[in-house]
Amino acid sequence: MSRFLGYRCSLCGAEYAPDQVEYVCPKHGDSGNLDVVLDYTMIRHGAASPAALAASQDFSIWRYLPLLPVADPGCEGTPLRAVGWTPLYRADRLASTLGLNASRVFVKDDGRNPTASFKDRASAVVVARAREIHAPVIAAASTGNAGAALAGMAAAVAHPAVILAPQTAPPAKIAQLLMFGAKVLLVNGNYDQAFDLTLRASREFGWYCRNTGYNPFTLEGKKTAAFEICEQFTHQMSRGTPVGWLAPDRLFVSVGDGNILSGIHKGLKDLLALGWIDKLPKLMGVQAEGSAACANAWASNTETITPVSAQTLADSISVDLPRDGVRAVRAVRETGGAYVVVSDDDILAAMRDLARGLAVFAEPAGATAYAGLAKAARAGIMGADETVVVVVTGSGLKDVKSAMQAAGEAVKIEPTLEAVKRVAAR
Amino acid sequence: MSRFLGYRCSLCGAEYAPDQVEYVCPKHGDSGNLDVVLDYTMIRHGAASPAALAASQDFSIWRYLPLLPVADPGCEGTPLRAVGWTPLYRADRLASTLGLNASRVFVKDDGRNPTASFKDRASAVVVARAREIHAPVIAAASTGNAGAALAGMAAAVAHPAVILAPQTAPPAKIAQLLMFGAKVLLVNGNYDQAFDLTLRASREFGWYCRNTGYNPFTLEGKKTAAFEICEQFTHQMSRGTPVGWLAPDRLFVSVGDGNILSGIHKGLKDLLALGWIDKLPKLMGVQAEGSAACANAWASNTETITPVSAQTLADSISVDLPRDGVRAVRAVRETGGAYVVVSDDDILAAMRDLARGLAVFAEPAGATAYAGLAKAARAGIMGADETVVVVVTGSGLKDVKSAMQAAGEAVKIEPTLEAVKRVAAR
Repeated sequence: MSRFLGYRCSLCGAEYAPDQVEYVCPKHGDSGNLDVVLDYTMIRHGAASPAALAASQDFSIWRYLPLLPVADPGCEGTPLRAVGWTPLYRADRLASTLGLNASRVFVKDDGRNPTASFKDRASAVVVARAREIHAPVIAAASTGNAGAALAGMAAAVAHPAVILAPQTAPPAKIAQLLMFGAKVLLVNGNYDQAFDLTLRASREFGWYCRNTGYNPFTLEGKKTAAFEICEQFTHQMSRGTPVGWLAPDRLFVSVGDGNILSGIHKGLKDLLALGWIDKLPKLMGVQAEGSAACANAWASNTETITPVSAQTLADSISVDLPRDGVRAVRAVRETGGAYVVVSDDDILAAMRDLARGLAVFAEPAGATAYAGLAKAARAGIMGADETVVVVVTGSGLKDVKSAMQAAGEAVKIEPTLEAVKRVAAR
Repeated sequence: MSRFLGYRCSLCGAEYAPDQVEYVCPKHGDSGNLDVVLDYTMIRHGAASPAALAASQDFSIWRYLPLLPVADPGCEGTPLRAVGWTPLYRADRLASTLGLNASRVFVKDDGRNPTASFKDRASAVVVARAREIHAPVIAAASTGNAGAALAGMAAAVAHPAVILAPQTAPPAKIAQLLMFGAKVLLVNGNYDQAFDLTLRASREFGWYCRNTGYNPFTLEGKKTAAFEICEQFTHQMSRGTPVGWLAPDRLFVSVGDGNILSGIHKGLKDLLALGWIDKLPKLMGVQAEGSAACANAWASNTETITPVSAQTLADSISVDLPRDGVRAVRAVRETGGAYVVVSDDDILAAMRDLARGLAVFAEPAGATAYAGLAKAARAGIMGADETVVVVVTGSGLKDVKSAMQAAGEAVKIEPTLEAVKRVAAR
């Protein structure tokens, strides 16, 4: 386990040993999110390498265990072991629609995780950590997906979980939480209130807090998407066994709390430090215009995140104060990317385009990254020959109401051939 | 393609060359479902074998292409290529609850297919066939899942599709159909009426009809689940590279039209004929008591299926007349299995058990097979040491209303620590 050297504060750079702190840097209240520091020399001299991974039979996030700060969680044959290694699809038809070159645009469908969202990555690693430190209960605030992921991963290994979600979370997400047997508290307030309440309750009751960003292991779980993107992208672009991996030119990621984007950034930095890739992709953060605190900070050339009063149908990225905003702004700035802000109508259009042009049915936040690509392509920000990966973060089945809004109504007919004839002729 | 010898009528045994018939045996109206006849000698002498498959890098149904009656569909990097190879989980905790031996009970989660149901297997193979025969439009009657699967697989390769579904299909399933861009006709009637109307409309408009059972390629798609079950079960039971595969002792499968059960039976018979397994598992058909036409026929020791007036919350298996009933009854009888009939309450309990004991969130029909295992275990039908695989056919996100019914309501609280304290103390 000695590849896990400790933590570094993302705000002031202070370093801590693994047993010195639990969540955040003590110098900044609850907001000093920590980066996990790994011993890259040890990893490089260990058994892990692109060539070793090409022979791995573990098609999940756990294939990257040598790059994670947790021990092997065991639990073989459970859904905890079946997170990740989601498909990276070629989006040739969509690329053509956008005036980009076919075979250069790819979509990573993380809706195909066990609980149907990207958040399984974070929850799986946090559950592994909770088992290592013998935490009796895991708690999380969630707009729905993170909670469902925690409830699911906890159920997979019979670990108690408590979820605090806003009462406005879509019914499908609440149903998922309850089905997995977590204790579910629907808070009469928004995500931000649920977040703060979870911090206080965790301190009060000794729960292990999985809150996004606040818990350093969420980032470590989410970084596995970067590993998969580079490994799968390399397979798509060249069929031989590579000694290193290729990184795409640009990565589009939806941003709410900012933790997915900063998690992917961390994963890419790990790979660059190990010499497995030789450049960082330009990271493109995409926010809903009604919840654009990170985009605002980026545009204002600051790292000070000013809270907004969030309003967007993309519930998973509807947050007043992004809890990992600083790192999410920095991820874009350091890689020479940009923020793109899209409207709810753009998001509904992206849902339709992804479903019809690629058969990927995404929830609103899941389609937001694609809405950003569409807008960037229309604005001529990108060269047509750039390689692009778009991350879809959750399944459309999570939010049927929005899907109905995007898709419109079905035609109702009487059970007669004449009725079919009238409609088929249209 | 010469491994595809032709068809054999499941009712009278008449044989046909591939180009002699399109759907059913002409001697029995619309009900003479055909089995695809394969040249096992050719397959055996070809490149396919358990050892070759152990080295395959294709983790989808297409790894079994040499055992399918279609040519390679191409379309690499699309969701059409990402169907199947769903996880086979170890259900140790559930087994203990049921008084069965841990490490002998497994659950195949087919809710993790691209459109979140087993039906992707059938639709993928039918779409491959449609492309081969240059069919301009594919049509299907569906309670929701088969239609979503067809709409999704068609969208993946830009093939036009028409879906006829009963107006009572759950909103999530209808939303999926619409999102994928299929022409969706909601029929003011039940599934049986939509089925017959699709047959007539397909004849009238020259659509290629995917109707379950009626189209012989649905069975060929569904049989891939049997291949995966045996291959994955072998990996779970013994870690070496096998020269052959192991078959579990029993397989529990929910039965509506009966086509999933008969598809799995066909796959097992293929494997037995090839010598890759050395016995057939006992096939256990599980029906909702409100839709038990196959179970009734089995109990009466007949192959004559008497229609019922179906009523169950498990919408995917709510059918008056099972369209593949004869083969589904025969599958159970020929393998020495049994039919088990479960109540809607049993199904809701199974949904809870699967989610809490294994983190698999299933729709009602998806959990029905597990309800059957629970009932069979309680009845002492099985030895505790038998190896068992339960097939989960669809995701719980497809039918949130039923999930709410199974899971109950969440606790609502004000955003205060005191409120959490009151609830946490419970």
